[in-house]
Amino acid sequence: MSFIEKLSRAWKLNNSLVCVGLDPDLAKLPPCVRQIRNPIFEFNKAIIDATCEQVCCYKPQIACYEGQNAEEDLAMTMAYLKSRCPAIPVILDAKRADIGSTSKMYAEAAFVRYGADAVTVNPYMGMDALKPFLDFADRGVVVLCRTSNPGAKEIQDLTMSDGTPLYKHVAALVAGPWNYNGNNMLVAGATFPKELGEIRRIVGNMPLLVPGVGAQGGDLEGVLKFGLTSEKTGLVINSSRGIIYASPGEDFAQKAGSEALKLKEAINMYR
Amino acid sequence: MSFIEKLSRAWKLNNSLVCVGLDPDLAKLPPCVRQIRNPIFEFNKAIIDATCEQVCCYKPQIACYEGQNAEEDLAMTMAYLKSRCPAIPVILDAKRADIGSTSKMYAEAAFVRYGADAVTVNPYMGMDALKPFLDFADRGVVVLCRTSNPGAKEIQDLTMSDGTPLYKHVAALVAGPWNYNGNNMLVAGATFPKELGEIRRIVGNMPLLVPGVGAQGGDLEGVLKFGLTSEKTGLVINSSRGIIYASPGEDFAQKAGSEALKLKEAINMYR
Repeated sequence: MSFIEKLSRAWKLNNSLVCVGLDPDLAKLPPCVRQIRNPIFEFNKAIIDATCEQVCCYKPQIACYEGQNAEEDLAMTMAYLKSRCPAIPVILDAKRADIGSTSKMYAEAAFVRYGADAVTVNPYMGMDALKPFLDFADRGVVVLCRTSNPGAKEIQDLTMSDGTPLYKHVAALVAGPWNYNGNNMLVAGATFPKELGEIRRIVGNMPLLVPGVGAQGGDLEGVLKFGLTSEKTGLVINSSRGIIYASPGEDFAQKAGSEALKLKEAINMYR
Repeated sequence: MSFIEKLSRAWKLNNSLVCVGLDPDLAKLPPCVRQIRNPIFEFNKAIIDATCEQVCCYKPQIACYEGQNAEEDLAMTMAYLKSRCPAIPVILDAKRADIGSTSKMYAEAAFVRYGADAVTVNPYMGMDALKPFLDFADRGVVVLCRTSNPGAKEIQDLTMSDGTPLYKHVAALVAGPWNYNGNNMLVAGATFPKELGEIRRIVGNMPLLVPGVGAQGGDLEGVLKFGLTSEKTGLVINSSRGIIYASPGEDFAQKAGSEALKLKEAINMYR
């Protein structure tokens, strides 16, 4: 089954567009978790158990594992996701891209070593840098287009000679020549819902990964107004900190579950 | 000592602009190395011993370690470089960038976990995505500008509304507001020497990391003609596969040493 098909089924299965970002930071984990072996994995496991009926997707941020010497915890988390909720796809958030022979190593890491269903990538180096990812036809490749951070405008909003901003040019490439295996998605931040609407017009029904709700303050109503497809899906709306750190106490998983449910319901109100 | 100062001293110490890319691929390692414990580290160690008097820099490609479950070999390699040749700076080639809280994790990985002197980053997400790296004032931050791969032109050569290509706009940001700690460098591929000259005009004496000689077929004479500063330095010219895989046999390290010397001499002929 292709990634897009798996995602489409997950939207229906849980009637949800919510993605939970598994971005554990040891310094922020509840004390009750910090004391056990593989605390990052144990934290993720509890979050997954509490949220897996509220989500269409999980998105571990590889930087958290690289920065905390926790590749083992990431591998354990990926294996746990596969056995605990095999119907829920997993996007490894890595934002990789490099020359072809190097991107091949990154694609091996994401899709073989960690077994991700999809991976995020950066478009700056052009298509040949993404080809080793795109060639995994049954996996998803999520290309950065208009990101949710304040500085995104410095490059992504630059006006090209034809009068359009760079991010729209990227959207056209991702929906066109780069999508030769039909396995592309785009990142469009919740903090810029009108730009998200511009992207939707360019890419048709292609799924969009939408970071920036929750801690980054994105506009949920705007995201749904401008981003939904005619089938009332097409969006993977990510929240990380707003869900996984909902409580600093022993009830962290339970609170994460109720925050995920709350976000799912808030989204479904606008669908 | 700042990264730029360390690099300037290394240029003089070995009278060399050569950077050796430590991009080990298990499938390509000589059989005599593949059989021992930590083969990737042992391979790197032999290459380092054989080349450390011919280079101004080493550049491990983190994808090779991530793709081959070899974080331990990378950490061992970084520690070995620090003890064996402390005067030679090390650029960790990672091409990272993400929202601030995530880039902070990546910066921790590069500069603390692995102890790199510098790291490569991607400009697509703007300055706030690079700030956690830039804030390490004594380390170097090497921003992608005009890369050496064929597809680079799809994005980097796009003409902006003011008539200049995107990569020149990036160069101006990197030489201007993004360089608030004076610790920036740029990537300018050897496969596009005229673009490299354009970049040199924009960034003054800022050091340029130049990939693409060797396996990628870059033009050495053009690189030096367009890229040298008035002090006949300013370049870090990387070769990976052309040096580390110079021989498939037991003499791999010795051959790597002579290839590094050959490249150093070829470069110095044009200085």
